[in-house]
Amino acid sequence: MKLGAPAGESPVGREQSASSLEQTHGLDNGRVLPKQPEAAKSSRFERWMLKSVLGICGDPAVRVVLWDGETVCTSPSPPVGSIVIRDRRVLRRMALQPIVGFGDGYGEGLIDIEGNLVDVLSAMSRAVDRPRPDGLVGRILNPRPNIHRPHHIDASRDSVHQHYDLGNSFYKLWLDENLSYTCAYFSEPGMTLEKAQTAKLDHVCRKLQLRPGDRVIEAGCGWGGLALHMAKRYGVSVRAFNLSREQIVYARDWAKSLGLSDRVEFVEDDYRNISGACDAFVSVGMLEHVGLENFRELGRVIDGVLTPSGRGLIHTIGRNTPMPLDPWIDKRIFPGAYPPALSEMMRIFEPWHLSVLDVENIRMHYVRTLEHWLERHERARGEVVRMFDERFARMWRLYLAGSIAAFAVGSLQLFQVVFAREANNDIPWTRMHLYSARNAE
Amino acid sequence: MKLGAPAGESPVGREQSASSLEQTHGLDNGRVLPKQPEAAKSSRFERWMLKSVLGICGDPAVRVVLWDGETVCTSPSPPVGSIVIRDRRVLRRMALQPIVGFGDGYGEGLIDIEGNLVDVLSAMSRAVDRPRPDGLVGRILNPRPNIHRPHHIDASRDSVHQHYDLGNSFYKLWLDENLSYTCAYFSEPGMTLEKAQTAKLDHVCRKLQLRPGDRVIEAGCGWGGLALHMAKRYGVSVRAFNLSREQIVYARDWAKSLGLSDRVEFVEDDYRNISGACDAFVSVGMLEHVGLENFRELGRVIDGVLTPSGRGLIHTIGRNTPMPLDPWIDKRIFPGAYPPALSEMMRIFEPWHLSVLDVENIRMHYVRTLEHWLERHERARGEVVRMFDERFARMWRLYLAGSIAAFAVGSLQLFQVVFAREANNDIPWTRMHLYSARNAE
Repeated sequence: MKLGAPAGESPVGREQSASSLEQTHGLDNGRVLPKQPEAAKSSRFERWMLKSVLGICGDPAVRVVLWDGETVCTSPSPPVGSIVIRDRRVLRRMALQPIVGFGDGYGEGLIDIEGNLVDVLSAMSRAVDRPRPDGLVGRILNPRPNIHRPHHIDASRDSVHQHYDLGNSFYKLWLDENLSYTCAYFSEPGMTLEKAQTAKLDHVCRKLQLRPGDRVIEAGCGWGGLALHMAKRYGVSVRAFNLSREQIVYARDWAKSLGLSDRVEFVEDDYRNISGACDAFVSVGMLEHVGLENFRELGRVIDGVLTPSGRGLIHTIGRNTPMPLDPWIDKRIFPGAYPPALSEMMRIFEPWHLSVLDVENIRMHYVRTLEHWLERHERARGEVVRMFDERFARMWRLYLAGSIAAFAVGSLQLFQVVFAREANNDIPWTRMHLYSARNAE
Repeated sequence: MKLGAPAGESPVGREQSASSLEQTHGLDNGRVLPKQPEAAKSSRFERWMLKSVLGICGDPAVRVVLWDGETVCTSPSPPVGSIVIRDRRVLRRMALQPIVGFGDGYGEGLIDIEGNLVDVLSAMSRAVDRPRPDGLVGRILNPRPNIHRPHHIDASRDSVHQHYDLGNSFYKLWLDENLSYTCAYFSEPGMTLEKAQTAKLDHVCRKLQLRPGDRVIEAGCGWGGLALHMAKRYGVSVRAFNLSREQIVYARDWAKSLGLSDRVEFVEDDYRNISGACDAFVSVGMLEHVGLENFRELGRVIDGVLTPSGRGLIHTIGRNTPMPLDPWIDKRIFPGAYPPALSEMMRIFEPWHLSVLDVENIRMHYVRTLEHWLERHERARGEVVRMFDERFARMWRLYLAGSIAAFAVGSLQLFQVVFAREANNDIPWTRMHLYSARNAE
């Protein structure tokens, strides 16, 4: 079974072959909590509760099979697959917090999916994120909306540590060789993940119009792939910031091995402490962790360092409309993360009269990127379980598959925003230079 | 003297030759009110008042010469030219309303410019639009900020009539042959205005991914150039809406002469009355007149007509940050107009979960477009004066030159925003198709 769509095929999970992740990977081994006695019949109240939960979730096109074989489906359209709830405790948790209860239940092996995992998650995403009036339903779906959670530096450090310091060896199992943990750019449909990640780096560099000798500041540099690519291929010098100790150590070693330590400085610090001056400011996949209340401050930092002729780019997951992050992802995967709508992103630029030159939404590229990651993650599943445990491996499967679903149904977006100072007239007249033959790989 | 920069030259007025519009066109003939006796000395109070006005305007890098030859300059940088105030009544008016007083004084011939008109206006734009705290100064500069002015349909009809029904023969004097009264797209630097306006139409059509047989709705169609181009070159059918009677009559005749009346319907009605269904929704240069309070309603209209696989494009003048329109332009040229910031534009899309795919800022193209228009307008100056009067010709010169200045200093932007429905996955993976050789002219 192939999770990552091969070249030319549709990247969207629901158009793949009918064989499902579940069927392949034998989830019976994956159960963490002990099974409940099969004899326990579901009550009328439990089935009513389940219907209420499904209603709150927008009646997704899925069937729910309870531990006693009872089946519930509230959707008017035919179900794309089944959610098997193996334990009534999960149902009770879902009644209080539908999304978190579902995610945790799946992680614990008390929920299984019959059919294609991405299809089922897409049906759920489509239903949950449907435009609806706010109020009680929104409160139940998002019990602690994280829009206004504080992001002071220590909290940011903790959040970053929780996700990015899981161990470089874990990420090496399923990321590309350069450890790009952000959306790739498939400039040609048949590209490998490796080539598409390099194409992304070049797409970013061209948008920044890098010139040899430029001073670049990168905020949130991951394992250093972009910083080193810019220095190696575009002849610039880079100061790259990151709060993750593990990543910074890795990046410094990598710079040394490439002989680039004199031109790429990796700084273990917060973006708020960036100072100096730069001809280009770039941030790929950090904004999701900055928090809305700091967008203006991020703009102040940029305004403080960008030269009059400087260019900038921010690459981030976003939304079509302001909406809190999936509460399970917020709780278990990315604490405090928030993908902004474009109106919200403008809080970075507008107070400082920075001029937005170009916004590109490459959402479909994240579908394909995530398909590659999920496929590799599942191939390395045995290793992941050995490094952590079964529950961790299931959680990460759900997170990756759920992200494919969210990008595929349009609940998440991927924005690249290019900007410059208001009075900078040395900006390209067209975007032709991004696509001209001499720039193509 | 050349106002429109020829191919290869910088389009920015201040880099042109030192010979100025004023020197060329002999403005002594252009004075509307009678000259004041030269003997009247300016008082200390008047000079203090002038300094205050300049301070309120951000101390632009200009010299002001009063009717008695007295000179005032409050700028720390060297002045780029002089504003000659020939009458103390103008100074008094400027003390109350600096921008309106200046514009009206210029129109009446009581203010002249020594040096390059665009340079002087650029210096003023740069100073006036500098980021500053709100309060009294903002109130004086924008005595009746037009952000919240109502735009009910009758008011919109009046505003449209006041500007667009000045007479087709007037616009024919200085627009391109297809009467495109919006920013052109100079895909090649040496293009003529005619070619650049056609390139703009094709750029828009490619962004909309038009396919033969598509149903297109256009909101605010001007004289019909885009609607007819889409039908003729892309094989689509179009319903195009406009409130300007004169433009609609012209467009219908034009459609008839091209044998396209069966495929292009011109409707004299407001965008709020658009109904039906369309595969593509397009609006070029209308949003400036819609009014912020109606952005959500415009989105509702789009949401009501766009098919699930539909695409849309809005082309509009905009801002880097929310700010009222120049009050003189608002009073004399475009009543009720408002160029939105991107955060404000998102009010069209976000409530309806429309997905923004692409934003392009082609501000520099409007500098060059306006240079062409101003050059043609000045060449046809005798005709304009005969059709209207000297004051009108001066007002339009100021409006066109001032717009060059505003785009050149980055006080105005030109945004093209492409969007689609949230769940539409039939969107292009890259923007290569906009730039591929087979699409190029």
